[in-house]
Amino acid sequence: MIQAKIAHFTSMPAQVFGAEAPGTSIRVLINDEHDGAPVYNMRMIEIEPGGHSPLHQHPYEHENYVLNGEGEVFIDGKTSPIAPGTVILVPPGVMHQYRNTGTRLLRFLCSVPVAKLRQG
Amino acid sequence: MIQAKIAHFTSMPAQVFGAEAPGTSIRVLINDEHDGAPVYNMRMIEIEPGGHSPLHQHPYEHENYVLNGEGEVFIDGKTSPIAPGTVILVPPGVMHQYRNTGTRLLRFLCSVPVAKLRQG
Repeated sequence: MIQAKIAHFTSMPAQVFGAEAPGTSIRVLINDEHDGAPVYNMRMIEIEPGGHSPLHQHPYEHENYVLNGEGEVFIDGKTSPIAPGTVILVPPGVMHQYRNTGTRLLRFLCSVPVAKLRQG
Repeated sequence: MIQAKIAHFTSMPAQVFGAEAPGTSIRVLINDEHDGAPVYNMRMIEIEPGGHSPLHQHPYEHENYVLNGEGEVFIDGKTSPIAPGTVILVPPGVMHQYRNTGTRLLRFLCSVPVAKLRQG
């Protein structure tokens, strides 16, 4: 049985991405493995000024909501500005990258299907 | 083929809930019907001071992220405070309700599975 979860995002640790994404970390807010999420995992991405996420693609979508900061998102050849309140749907199978072009932390939600649904 | 979407939340209209949820409106940010979302629909709920969402249950989960304001969430007999940065997983099949107990607009994301996956 799935249990209710109520927690502030700061109680979920920020894990550093690594060399392919300088200045970037990820917090897993709700997921299948630990919380029993039925269809999607909610994560938070934090990118320091000048940093960026990996330029990559995968066979499943992202759904994003930008919380803080300013930056840009590259999707399938096109770069667009993002700011607090921006909603983004990154389709499955397209190259994409998030970049912090501002002077403050860029923070956004980035949800993905659970493992059993990440087949595209 | 699914198209990329990049839009500010204010470009999606707020629809009033009705008598069972005074002061409450909903914006559909990303969904299956219009955007081709593969597994989950992202919505935004806005509740005015003193207002609340319906007290109800359904066979699918909610995943929430609180953006602005203060309030409380009732889940399966227990009431908890919520504030910006609170993450909530409402399990399938439990009674739940959100209430604005503050003096400003309570705004949170509320995602649900797409129609074909809302069977619980």
